[in-house]
Amino acid sequence: MSEPTSNWTTDPAPLLRAGEGFRLGEVDPESTPGYDGDKKSGKKDLEALSAELNDLQERLFAAHHDEDSGPAVLLVLQAMDTAGKGGIVRHVVGAVDPQGVELAAFKKPTEEELAHDFLWRIRPRVPGPGMIGVFDRSHYEDVLIGRVRKLADGAEIERRYTAISDFEAELVAAGVRIVKVMLHISPDEQKERLAERLDRPDKYWKYNPGDVEERLLWPDYMDAYQAVFDRTSTEAAPWFVVPANRKWYARLAVQRLLLDVLKDIDPQWPAADFDVEVEKKRLADS
Amino acid sequence: MSEPTSNWTTDPAPLLRAGEGFRLGEVDPESTPGYDGDKKSGKKDLEALSAELNDLQERLFAAHHDEDSGPAVLLVLQAMDTAGKGGIVRHVVGAVDPQGVELAAFKKPTEEELAHDFLWRIRPRVPGPGMIGVFDRSHYEDVLIGRVRKLADGAEIERRYTAISDFEAELVAAGVRIVKVMLHISPDEQKERLAERLDRPDKYWKYNPGDVEERLLWPDYMDAYQAVFDRTSTEAAPWFVVPANRKWYARLAVQRLLLDVLKDIDPQWPAADFDVEVEKKRLADS
Repeated sequence: MSEPTSNWTTDPAPLLRAGEGFRLGEVDPESTPGYDGDKKSGKKDLEALSAELNDLQERLFAAHHDEDSGPAVLLVLQAMDTAGKGGIVRHVVGAVDPQGVELAAFKKPTEEELAHDFLWRIRPRVPGPGMIGVFDRSHYEDVLIGRVRKLADGAEIERRYTAISDFEAELVAAGVRIVKVMLHISPDEQKERLAERLDRPDKYWKYNPGDVEERLLWPDYMDAYQAVFDRTSTEAAPWFVVPANRKWYARLAVQRLLLDVLKDIDPQWPAADFDVEVEKKRLADS
Repeated sequence: MSEPTSNWTTDPAPLLRAGEGFRLGEVDPESTPGYDGDKKSGKKDLEALSAELNDLQERLFAAHHDEDSGPAVLLVLQAMDTAGKGGIVRHVVGAVDPQGVELAAFKKPTEEELAHDFLWRIRPRVPGPGMIGVFDRSHYEDVLIGRVRKLADGAEIERRYTAISDFEAELVAAGVRIVKVMLHISPDEQKERLAERLDRPDKYWKYNPGDVEERLLWPDYMDAYQAVFDRTSTEAAPWFVVPANRKWYARLAVQRLLLDVLKDIDPQWPAADFDVEVEKKRLADS
């Protein structure tokens, strides 16, 4: 990294990546891998690095948004309720120009969506060239709640893992850089966050009695996530498990993951496709 | 207004509104109607009032986003090139939760769009209940460049004014509050801003030789805007002309216009649709 003032001690990507032999159960949701700082420094670093993210995003947009094909970034966010997906969207992605961001929140599928293959509603929301797309929940719901709640049979779930990997490989081949993030909180942390929603009338709307039912299935969900990592964390589209009991860390970490792919794309300001001196003269005369 | 610390001396809405007898030619793009402050205080006020905008937006979203029908806000932005639409999106709307915002940028119509009525591509982008929608350019292009460049004949342009008013009346009846803003800059200010794009390689991508051609038609565009105000500034969906040579003022003013409609909607935190005490117990036991 080029910013000597941040409290990152190392690039967290390799530490967070769900690679060969990764075990979700071994990740401490309280931990802050690669970061030697606290909430206060974390907020400062988030803001400081936002400027860099912003610059890279603007270059990406400038260089590619008018192209028929070209690089894009897709951030996939998955998590148990209250883990902080919304905060990532707001505080990390929210720091860049909204014109260059395509946000897709996938809710419970509609009847029409259910009548199609599970990727049918996903495909049209893949970000175009030059854009940063964010999936707030995603096609992974179909192998998470889909598996835990047995919304599809085992053979169909198996088929979906493969379909997902094929789909993502296709996107990657088309230039979409995929960053898949599971925000990992502990059941106790979730309990506190849900309790807060029940304590504050301005938070009631965020609470759903179904949240407790999902919560009771925590171990099943963790198994389903482990299967997702085992089956779909590929070289081309890796999963990252981000400890998220400390919201400030999760935001910093996702910001770093985005910075990494953007730096790797290394988008450049496009050259003028006009004669600058001629245009200066035309403008002066106008 | 309830914020005694801002430098607004009066609600600018009546001053900016294109009502009966409004003449665009009488608006000074350098002026700051209703605001007694400078760039520095403007930035401070923008930030301070962002908190209020944010609170109102969250209430609107909380109260209505799950409904089949209900209030929404639609901000329509029109302007000559470089007037600062992007800055409004970023610095005014960008202060609220991206989850509650639907941004639609309307570019030159595609072949498919041209094969349909001009409102065909607009309808699907109208914000749903609880949302704030922003149109970066809009159906008004079809009576602005459409008129100036004679992309349609006079009878069709006439038809469109009526179609627009009918369309907007329909949206208003469905609960969409429409705030139509023209950002008004002077030709000299535009010249400076275009010149800056030609002076900085990181700005070349924002420059298009066609911008100078449009610029040469400035008086025609002002006539077309005047016709738009005369024909489509209705009680239900008024136009506001915001002086925009001072970017900080334009942002403050649009923020105020949004605050006005949101306050008028006066969205309330929804009551719990569950028994809070029962849920506290269920959660504690989980």
